[in-house]
Amino acid sequence: MKPAEPKRFGSVTGLKPEKIAYYKKLHAYVWPAVLKKIKECNIRNYSIYFKKIDSAYYLFSYFEYTGNNFEEDMKKMSRDPDTQRWWKETDPCQQPITGSDKIWSPMEEVFHTN
Amino acid sequence: MKPAEPKRFGSVTGLKPEKIAYYKKLHAYVWPAVLKKIKECNIRNYSIYFKKIDSAYYLFSYFEYTGNNFEEDMKKMSRDPDTQRWWKETDPCQQPITGSDKIWSPMEEVFHTN
Repeated sequence: MKPAEPKRFGSVTGLKPEKIAYYKKLHAYVWPAVLKKIKECNIRNYSIYFKKIDSAYYLFSYFEYTGNNFEEDMKKMSRDPDTQRWWKETDPCQQPITGSDKIWSPMEEVFHTN
Repeated sequence: MKPAEPKRFGSVTGLKPEKIAYYKKLHAYVWPAVLKKIKECNIRNYSIYFKKIDSAYYLFSYFEYTGNNFEEDMKKMSRDPDTQRWWKETDPCQQPITGSDKIWSPMEEVFHTN
């Protein structure tokens, strides 16, 4: 049986200038427990990109979700103590984009080909 | 044998406000010849996302390259007449970000997990 098509998510957030080095360092050595939980929550092929646009700094994420209940898996992730400690480090680095009350803002997919 | 890890590319460009609807329409019905050439040039799992940030509009692309000679494959793509016609439609929709002389600006990968 062909596996079901994963759901793809693209998101954007800001990165505070004074936190760029720390954010990059954290992600160069991501805690194994965090990676493990990501996998357990059915997130695959997860990348984060960094870019300066005009005078501001941004992070763009892409990942694929292979499970059947995204909301429940995200709750599971947010209940994980290691992930909570990780977010305690990363959250203060990030700056939600204007008009967003969440750290990561969803982007609209306009094209995909396998 | 385990297949080699693909190379991943994240890029960003601007989208002109007056061209948003046309760009989306083009991509909702991408020309089959363009999709075929993308595949022939060893590009896989290619997504484009759209996002308004502050007062500007952006496109973010993510794709995986599974070939052995990216430069040569990109040349091959640029020599394809159908792809040239496609770009004649899409190029005028796009607005390179400040400081870039190319339509799509590469972003820096700071994190990836499979």
